[in-house]
Parts: sequence; structure tokens; C-alpha cells
Amino acid sequence: MSEAFYSGKAKTLYRATEPGYLVMDFRDDVTAFNGEKHATLQCKGELNCAINTLVMEYLESQGIATHFVRQLDAHSTLVKAARVLPVECIFRNRVAGSFMKKYGLGLGDELAHPVYEYCVKSDALGDPLIAPGAITALGMLTPEQLEWTGQETARINRVLGELFADCDYQLVDGKLEFGLLEESGELALVDEFTPDSCRLWSAQGERFDKDLFREDLGDLVGGYREVHRRLCSALRQPVEP
Amino acid sequence: MSEAFYSGKAKTLYRATEPGYLVMDFRDDVTAFNGEKHATLQCKGELNCAINTLVMEYLESQGIATHFVRQLDAHSTLVKAARVLPVECIFRNRVAGSFMKKYGLGLGDELAHPVYEYCVKSDALGDPLIAPGAITALGMLTPEQLEWTGQETARINRVLGELFADCDYQLVDGKLEFGLLEESGELALVDEFTPDSCRLWSAQGERFDKDLFREDLGDLVGGYREVHRRLCSALRQPVEP
Repeated sequence: MSEAFYSGKAKTLYRATEPGYLVMDFRDDVTAFNGEKHATLQCKGELNCAINTLVMEYLESQGIATHFVRQLDAHSTLVKAARVLPVECIFRNRVAGSFMKKYGLGLGDELAHPVYEYCVKSDALGDPLIAPGAITALGMLTPEQLEWTGQETARINRVLGELFADCDYQLVDGKLEFGLLEESGELALVDEFTPDSCRLWSAQGERFDKDLFREDLGDLVGGYREVHRRLCSALRQPVEP
Repeated sequence: MSEAFYSGKAKTLYRATEPGYLVMDFRDDVTAFNGEKHATLQCKGELNCAINTLVMEYLESQGIATHFVRQLDAHSTLVKAARVLPVECIFRNRVAGSFMKKYGLGLGDELAHPVYEYCVKSDALGDPLIAPGAITALGMLTPEQLEWTGQETARINRVLGELFADCDYQLVDGKLEFGLLEESGELALVDEFTPDSCRLWSAQGERFDKDLFREDLGDLVGGYREVHRRLCSALRQPVEP
């Protein structure tokens, strides 16, 4: 493998041998609070890699374009190289996390309809929330990209909400990133979709996501293993690893 | 005058003798950073009262509904009672203030088009920015109120931008509040519009707004007096007081 192209908090990207492709390696690292809290948990990288493969393949089967090509080994996948858009797209179906704290709300409060938010991708600035109009005024997205990412985030929220409902999970909220694929110039979902980047609750409010680590609520690897097991079952796939 | 109905950082509201009306008293107080910095500056209340009267009467003349009825004395005005909506509407024509800091931008940076933001009215929460969809999902505004406040904020920004251009000022940004008038149930601009709630720069970037106090940039009362003088001149009114 070539040298690291980009190293994030829980994944490393390498250039693949084929030009226009990257290898996304899921490490065993888990971080929270913008990197302030950190741990290394055995099997976490493999579980997230497997969960991400199931989700990305499912999204593709539902007509949603992603950068995902195929899983390479237990902890890495091949993806198409992309210019990542400089905003994160958040969807929220119930109240939790930063949204709860910022507006003084109660955990799990109902929302009259899903909420969609944009944040600037910037660890230095703390990923601040940004008004949709500010994104185009500052040249971060074109008006067409703003509209497309908004519609695609809503569509992915619907599709994944149904998938996770089949797993007896509520998809409470989640974070998506989009990018322009280098080869085709088309917009597609990039990055990952795992319990690191969303919240999954049982009907009883048990957590199966990174809040297990973030808030010391229990065994993260056990929770992620159960997410993987239920996804395999819902998608009628053998449970591996 | 009756007892105070509501006392804010720079104004006090009293019930008027006529039901459905309030007296808005402009005090000499000036505060910044959510009340952390405070001063009392002689004539500041009278100048803001006079500026607010000129602006509100001008907005009414341009077909914009406000709660303003008439000025009562040097520092107070009669207004229609209203149920104030729980969000503040921000317009931005150039980069300054919290927007500059939050996104790591440069003072006075150009924007490709005006930016409109909503913040939750809550000193306890620090008036946090909120996504438009979150406002309706949390029941703060109806979808119709959200659309109306957005359109009305853009219209007021255009109308006041032209008025202040006639005064050789750039209207850099500003904050508006809207409410449901008690008597008619109609939506209208409420609160005030003064250099306390907007930024006004000369072509050379000199400040004529609360940043004079907020950032210790010079004589606030002198700046506000000049705003009043130029508004009187642009609106062909005698300069009083």
C-alpha cells in the first residue's frame, strides 16, 4: 500500500494502485468531543468496515450514488476518489446530542418532521452550524449543489430509516458527507455510514452507537456487533466476521 | 405610568393606559456580550428613540407593517402590544461580528448575496443559530410564519439598505424581531431598529453602531448623533433633538 493520503480520527485513506481510486482503512480508534476523548477498541475497525459495506451496498441498490466500490479485506474498502464538499449534512428524526444541548431540549423529544442541518467541515472552528444561504453566499456550494445535497440527505434518511426499522432500531440522527467524484464529476455520498456517524436506539431507548463510548454508557464493540448482526439478518446475508 | 411590563437590556416596556398598547422606553443603558459589558451613556436613549421613530415611520411609508404607533416624548414611543415570535431574524450584507468569528472569515468580506439567519431568542442559551427546518419541527413558527418572516426580512433589508445608502452608510447587518399584533392578529415588525441592532459603516469603514462600544472603537453617542443627523437629512426632516 502507498503512503497515507489522509488520516482522520478513525479512518485512513491511501491512494490505490488504480488512479482515481482510494483505499479507506477503518482503524480501531474511536474519538469523541472533537478528538478530546480517545480509545482503541479491538474489532471496532472491522465491525465498522462490515457495517459500512452493508449500508453502502444497500444505498446503491436503492439508486443512491456513493463512492463505494467494494470491500477489500476485513478492515478496508475501495472507494472512488472525490473532492469532498466542505459541509456536513445532518438529519435528525428525534432530539439528541448537540441539538438537544444547544436548544435546551429533552433527550428523545419528538420532532414534528425531520430536521436537516448543514455544518461547516472544520475541526478548528468546531464544525459550526451554518445557514443554507450562507453556504452559497460564501461559495462553499453552488445553489444546485445546495438543493441536491438537501434532497439527497432527505432521501437517504428515508431509505436508511426503513432499513434500520427492519433491524428494530430507530435512526435518531446521522451525518452525511457528499463529494464530486473525480472521474465522472458527479455528486455522490462519500465517507462512511456507521454507528460512529449516526445514533441508533432500540424501542426501549438502549443505545447502539458511538454514544456508548461518548457518554460511557456501555460496551461499544458489543453494540456495534449487534448492529452488524441485525443488518445481516434484515438484508438476509450471512453474519461475517 | 404603570409598573414595568418587561425590562430588557436597553429598553423598558410599560402597559399604556389604552388596552392593547405598550409604552417602549429607550434607556441610556448600553450592553454587549450578552450583558457582560455595560455602560450608561447620556443622550443614548433619546438618540435611539429618535432614530427608531425615523426608521419605523419610513418602513410604514414603504408598506411594511410595524408595531410602532407614535413617539410620545424624547425617550419613549407608543407601540401596539404583540406576541413576539421566539426567533430573531438576522440579515447580513457583509461579513462582521459573530458570523466572521464563527466561520473564520475576514472583517468586511464580500458576500455573493445577502445572508439570512434565524437565532433562537434566549439569553440563557446564548441566542443560538437554528436551521429553518428546526424552527417548524420544534413548533416555534408555523411554516407560513417561517416563509413570511424570511420574505419580510429580505424586504426590510432592501428598503433600509437604500435608506442608509442615502445617508452614505453601508448597512452591514442587522437583527429584526417580528410578532403577532394582539388586536389584529397580524404579523408585524416589533422591537426597535437602531444602531444597537445593526451595523452601519461609512465607505471608509468607520463605525456608526454599537461596535463603537462593543470594541471600544470611539464615541458611541457621537456616532449615533451623526446617524440621526444623516437620517433627518435623507428624510428631509428637521434635526431634533
